Amino acid sequence: MAGFFDRHKDTLDKAVAAIRARGFWSAYPEMPSGKIYGETAKADGEAAFQALIGKPFDLDQPTTGGRVGHEVSPYGLDLAISYPQATPDMLVEAGTSAMAGWGAATPEERVGVCLEILARINAQSFLFANAVMHTSGQAFMMAFQAGGPHAQDRGLEAVAYAFDEMHRVPATVRWEKPQGPKDPIVLDKRFRIIPRGVALTIGCATFPTWNTYPGLFASLATGNAVIVKPHPGAILPLALTVRIGREVLAEAGFDPNVLLLAADDADAPITKELVTHPGVAIVDFTGSPAFGQWVRENARDKLVYTEEAGVNSIVVTGTDSLKGMAGNIAFSLSLYSGQMCTAPQNVYVPRDGIETDEGHKSFDEVAEAIKIAMDKLLGDPQRAAGVLGAVQNPATMERIATCRTLGRVVRDSAAVEGMDGARSATPLMLAVDAKDEAAYLEERFGPISFVIATDGVEDAIARAATSAKTRGAITAALYATDEAVIDKAADAFAEAGVGLSVNLTGGVFVNQNAAFSDYHVTGANPAGNACLCDSAFVANRFRVATVRRPAAA
Amino acid sequence: MAGFFDRHKDTLDKAVAAIRARGFWSAYPEMPSGKIYGETAKADGEAAFQALIGKPFDLDQPTTGGRVGHEVSPYGLDLAISYPQATPDMLVEAGTSAMAGWGAATPEERVGVCLEILARINAQSFLFANAVMHTSGQAFMMAFQAGGPHAQDRGLEAVAYAFDEMHRVPATVRWEKPQGPKDPIVLDKRFRIIPRGVALTIGCATFPTWNTYPGLFASLATGNAVIVKPHPGAILPLALTVRIGREVLAEAGFDPNVLLLAADDADAPITKELVTHPGVAIVDFTGSPAFGQWVRENARDKLVYTEEAGVNSIVVTGTDSLKGMAGNIAFSLSLYSGQMCTAPQNVYVPRDGIETDEGHKSFDEVAEAIKIAMDKLLGDPQRAAGVLGAVQNPATMERIATCRTLGRVVRDSAAVEGMDGARSATPLMLAVDAKDEAAYLEERFGPISFVIATDGVEDAIARAATSAKTRGAITAALYATDEAVIDKAADAFAEAGVGLSVNLTGGVFVNQNAAFSDYHVTGANPAGNACLCDSAFVANRFRVATVRRPAAA
Repeated sequence: MAGFFDRHKDTLDKAVAAIRARGFWSAYPEMPSGKIYGETAKADGEAAFQALIGKPFDLDQPTTGGRVGHEVSPYGLDLAISYPQATPDMLVEAGTSAMAGWGAATPEERVGVCLEILARINAQSFLFANAVMHTSGQAFMMAFQAGGPHAQDRGLEAVAYAFDEMHRVPATVRWEKPQGPKDPIVLDKRFRIIPRGVALTIGCATFPTWNTYPGLFASLATGNAVIVKPHPGAILPLALTVRIGREVLAEAGFDPNVLLLAADDADAPITKELVTHPGVAIVDFTGSPAFGQWVRENARDKLVYTEEAGVNSIVVTGTDSLKGMAGNIAFSLSLYSGQMCTAPQNVYVPRDGIETDEGHKSFDEVAEAIKIAMDKLLGDPQRAAGVLGAVQNPATMERIATCRTLGRVVRDSAAVEGMDGARSATPLMLAVDAKDEAAYLEERFGPISFVIATDGVEDAIARAATSAKTRGAITAALYATDEAVIDKAADAFAEAGVGLSVNLTGGVFVNQNAAFSDYHVTGANPAGNACLCDSAFVANRFRVATVRRPAAA
Repeated sequence: MAGFFDRHKDTLDKAVAAIRARGFWSAYPEMPSGKIYGETAKADGEAAFQALIGKPFDLDQPTTGGRVGHEVSPYGLDLAISYPQATPDMLVEAGTSAMAGWGAATPEERVGVCLEILARINAQSFLFANAVMHTSGQAFMMAFQAGGPHAQDRGLEAVAYAFDEMHRVPATVRWEKPQGPKDPIVLDKRFRIIPRGVALTIGCATFPTWNTYPGLFASLATGNAVIVKPHPGAILPLALTVRIGREVLAEAGFDPNVLLLAADDADAPITKELVTHPGVAIVDFTGSPAFGQWVRENARDKLVYTEEAGVNSIVVTGTDSLKGMAGNIAFSLSLYSGQMCTAPQNVYVPRDGIETDEGHKSFDEVAEAIKIAMDKLLGDPQRAAGVLGAVQNPATMERIATCRTLGRVVRDSAAVEGMDGARSATPLMLAVDAKDEAAYLEERFGPISFVIATDGVEDAIARAATSAKTRGAITAALYATDEAVIDKAADAFAEAGVGLSVNLTGGVFVNQNAAFSDYHVTGANPAGNACLCDSAFVANRFRVATVRRPAAA
């Protein structure tokens, strides 16, 4: 048990240093390379995935005896995996009971278990890549990276914050108050970390691990039992997570019911019952603003952390690299078919055009430059498939169809050649005027974007910042050559509670938020009420109970 | 401006070390000594207080032009001080506007201002002692200590936590991601602390400064504007605080409306309007559970920190110092007439009695020992006045009268000889059986206590812990000679989320929670949803906004 902590102490130390330094750092290699993960790792992961298809998923936890789950890959494959069914009462009861021993463990013991879970998940990154790919629809490379090492880094980041905060509460202390010439008053105090209660972590279908691991590991490390509620369309990646977690917990001598899976079917959902269960103390939610609002309103006596969504904007006021800018924006709009919570939707451009390294460009020419870059990026079907992946939800396909009339079509959406059996769609780009707010201020989830003509630079910044503040936004980007414009935008977007990327023209994209460096979501606008991660994300998940008594003479 | 930070850097460094070490530390001397505060400080404070009586309080802030406030000292003196009236809209608007500059300041600048405010408050501790005494009814010594240096220590503790958390977010960082043989990707990132919004701090009548300073300074240091809403019966201590704060803010070049007073009259309260104001983002509340519940239910989209109240218990299972125990309990029940949120109400004793250093003592003998110790403590009227102080609220006097019939009177309450014109009451002690839950499980605020006959040691611990868990409790105490009993109680009270004091027989009392060492309130039972202070108390009061851009080549 202590062995796990010692085994991963070096990783933890580096992670704790990284959350303070916030430069580049990663614990888990993002390259799906045989040199790193073992020469047979790719084939092994593929085989392990295939072995799960069409079978009951083996998970030894409290169950009604019934089975649930019916995942179908956005690439067409019917996974036909079933999971043990459990009622919310069963899960909460099992978690509550298991939490006694888990909460009484030392922070080091718990953190050791968390780090071992992450290490074992990391070792199976190729299996996770397949599981994430065939639930979320992400292309393989993204599924490997975002679903694997990047998600693991985010879990580790939460563990590091949790350890750091718990570690700052001393276990024992002698309190010695001077009494002038008399003997001091001396008390011995013992401080004990106590959990808040059973935590519920609600996952989403697009990033089942990446979005779930911060809350899951933050709650787990701080002594709470965790019920993991996957989206019915993306159960497998979290079922694998829970299975590995339970194995490690049991090996370390803890009740494996510290970590539980709450699988359900879309037509018989149990999420609401879990959220409102009086035995649930903490809720982490990633998903739609509509359901997020429901969670916030119905879990009012609980700790609630949400990452909902928003409308992310790019403001274009000028550039010294038109091609770099257009290529960067085109990639950001295409990546995973706009299904990232960080993906931009709205591109604000002054209606009178902008200055560039290629001279003055009109509004239409800027839109056209992005379209051309996109055509080039997606011209090769194989590369297109690798960038776009598949569309997770059939509703997104319908949305593309209905949104086509919301503006002038700059670039139409189409299926990707060769992706037969899969739901695929290249980006739809529409040009609108700033006054057409009904079209673009609403979130249009998926590969749908708007190029918006504004009265000028100030209007563009003001509209994008106001949109972030009122509708929520997780990312924002700016292209500008004037430092005064950059400063002004930095102030406006900070006030709107959104991180700003400036002049990205190379291999970094506004959609990418790196663990240990970027504060993903600020918690300061409607896109989410928390940051994943910062101190605030973990510090409230535990409390401190004291025992104090006069020191023995 | 930087001057303030440098001036108090040493104090800050020690405070930050203290919140980590959590041994004894205090920045502000608790002895009302001329050697420390200046030989004329006592007389000056008294004169400054007298000069305020019967006059409009001078506070230059947005106002309707009307005046409010009508404080009458529990000792009889009509303060007849009036304060500028302001509407919630005026206050929120002024605070919002002032917050722009305050939020954009560096953490060091803001913390410097906070430390200077505290230093100036400290220098006027005698004035504050008079103000606290004649609003709360505390005796002079407690008013000086708890209303002065101890409250200031708590403000400083919050500032130290805030600085520590903000300080861990680097202002700038270079992010350099290796790209194998290619050049790394290099981004420069700037992280900016952004405030949550206008904060409301609601004070109580019994500890107007001690209970208000943690939330006030936590919000202030993290960049929020703060509207201080005093209890209509205890405005003066917070009006003085706001006046000093505004002076320092203005001197440092900030808009003084960063700190505002929201005084009102009991018959025209504005608290609810402030709590539900859409421009208010943070609410700190200290007060009754009834109003606390209203605040929690009606400020659901805001950050809410409450210290409500509970029913604090002492469990007596045995002692090796009957006299020490009886004296300690008697003092705890008497101090400030039981009006402390930390004061015990219920003393659980096995009905078959306990073993002591003076042999076996029956239930009645234990109760009698406490009564005798109390009679001795309060036998001298002057000492009684110094321990008991006055009763803040007339309703408490009525409560004593109506509670008299709830059990067998062990010791009756009476006015204190010589405290003419003041509301005074010595403790009422009642003996009841554990089954009389309706009598003792409800909070009976004031000098009212119950000695409760239980089936034995386990029953006593279980009842006290369950009471803490379900009704809330801020403190608990245990007397035991058996280490196994102590361990068992430690587990039970930790699970109930309450700090436990064991075998206090000397000069430390269960009512006393020291800044920088004791975690006051756990946040883990209904007595409050937060701890004052820990990291969680401050970390969520600010957010981080990022600007990132490719590093210049």
